[in-house]
Amino acid sequence: MDTVVEGVHFLAEDPADTVAWKLVATNVSDLAAKGAVPRGCLLSYPLAQDSSWNCAFLAGLRSACEHFAIPLLGGDTVREPAPSARSFALVALGEPRSEAPVPSRSGARAGDDLWVSGSIGDAGAGLAILCGQADADPPSRAALVAAYRTPRPSVALGVAIAPLVSAMMDVSDGLLIDAARLARASRVAIEIDLDAVPLSPAFRHAKGEDLAARLFAATAGDDYQLLFAAPRAQEPTLLAHATEHDRPLHRVGRLSAGEGLQLAYNGQRVPLPASLGYEHQS
Amino acid sequence: MDTVVEGVHFLAEDPADTVAWKLVATNVSDLAAKGAVPRGCLLSYPLAQDSSWNCAFLAGLRSACEHFAIPLLGGDTVREPAPSARSFALVALGEPRSEAPVPSRSGARAGDDLWVSGSIGDAGAGLAILCGQADADPPSRAALVAAYRTPRPSVALGVAIAPLVSAMMDVSDGLLIDAARLARASRVAIEIDLDAVPLSPAFRHAKGEDLAARLFAATAGDDYQLLFAAPRAQEPTLLAHATEHDRPLHRVGRLSAGEGLQLAYNGQRVPLPASLGYEHQS
Repeated sequence: MDTVVEGVHFLAEDPADTVAWKLVATNVSDLAAKGAVPRGCLLSYPLAQDSSWNCAFLAGLRSACEHFAIPLLGGDTVREPAPSARSFALVALGEPRSEAPVPSRSGARAGDDLWVSGSIGDAGAGLAILCGQADADPPSRAALVAAYRTPRPSVALGVAIAPLVSAMMDVSDGLLIDAARLARASRVAIEIDLDAVPLSPAFRHAKGEDLAARLFAATAGDDYQLLFAAPRAQEPTLLAHATEHDRPLHRVGRLSAGEGLQLAYNGQRVPLPASLGYEHQS
Repeated sequence: MDTVVEGVHFLAEDPADTVAWKLVATNVSDLAAKGAVPRGCLLSYPLAQDSSWNCAFLAGLRSACEHFAIPLLGGDTVREPAPSARSFALVALGEPRSEAPVPSRSGARAGDDLWVSGSIGDAGAGLAILCGQADADPPSRAALVAAYRTPRPSVALGVAIAPLVSAMMDVSDGLLIDAARLARASRVAIEIDLDAVPLSPAFRHAKGEDLAARLFAATAGDDYQLLFAAPRAQEPTLLAHATEHDRPLHRVGRLSAGEGLQLAYNGQRVPLPASLGYEHQS
């Protein structure tokens, strides 16, 4: 179950169809990280006065439900009194395909490698572009804004690798903060090589690839990629699944006895940034 | 999945613990009407700045989850920018106990009787009292306000009678409007005897029991009682279950070939009121 709130999780000017897409995608990303095949979803929807917004949202919802093969089973529509930030909640239901245990955050072991799927930082760069804090050539711009507005988690890859991993989650709040959570839940230490954090060509055009760019990518969030720990022996099988599902996997770090998060860049220890990612209000 | 919005589904001054209770209860009511045993729930919760409100909500949530035996499995917490009407979404998951088909709205047949559980109109009278539009002696006041704020759908009765009914739903928007929906879904006509609509002693103290009071009760909504159609032959078994689960069942009408809703009072046809119940915005 994920809830998105206007002005917090999406921009008021984001197109309605992309708000719907992202709502489905963020929930599906959680299913993917648990190796669960989507079965259906339920939507809580506050009706907009602007019926064109409702129609565009519905079109985006349909596209996303078709893309991720997750039918809309039901939900609730409500009216919200103005002025209210609009808020949408979606529940995605899924089932594991295999008999293997559902991957948790707490199963990682010292000696495991840390992996991520896809590339990191694209959505963050897209948001920076939308906020006027970064720019790039038009194709890169389009790719990065698309990564922010219409993320594409890979369910097929998550389902395929779930039996191979010792712990898995999705990167939603930032690679560093989510990795720190995985380490804490598993009671192990984690070291991340910032050099190894996969950056897309579009990201490099917009932000470069120096240490600052890599720290930006690793703390930006909204990636909706898989983050997992796996024994070294699984590497060939993992890479075969990555190829089959056309979504790269990169080894970005390793787990060891102890606790906490450490960063390296060019073989040197790097101090942790002030913020590891998006911290939920509490 | 039900969503409640401040100022629409609950009053800003309603105690936080009762907002939580009602949110759980309205969802459990839907499970009861499908003969489903509660298995767990998921909550989308916007954190209040006022932590005492959060704590009171949590206490009410715990009470309701314990009362209805529905553990909180997860959900999402978000921040909403002020000023926003607060909005809570809850999903209740359940499973049918028996192998019998899950009752739909569309299975009622001409010749079936129409039944409701409990009493009708109490919550509506409670809301009228809270809005200063009605009054009653203190014990009746308390009972009616409790019916509005902390409804108690009977899961056990719903599960017990599900195999006996031809169609079932809960009364949430008003007896008349919900009965009309059942008739339309089942493609039958429906006649309701307003004399037979069960009124509690507290309701009678607040609103009386004349035709106007009965129309008020039958259109007020928020009852969260079971509304169902069943063949006459099931009557003895239905009444035995009612006794066992300490929740009365009353026959309030009958279904016949045709379409539409008709009302009778003292053996006379009564015109339909302008509003049959709460109509959701569309």
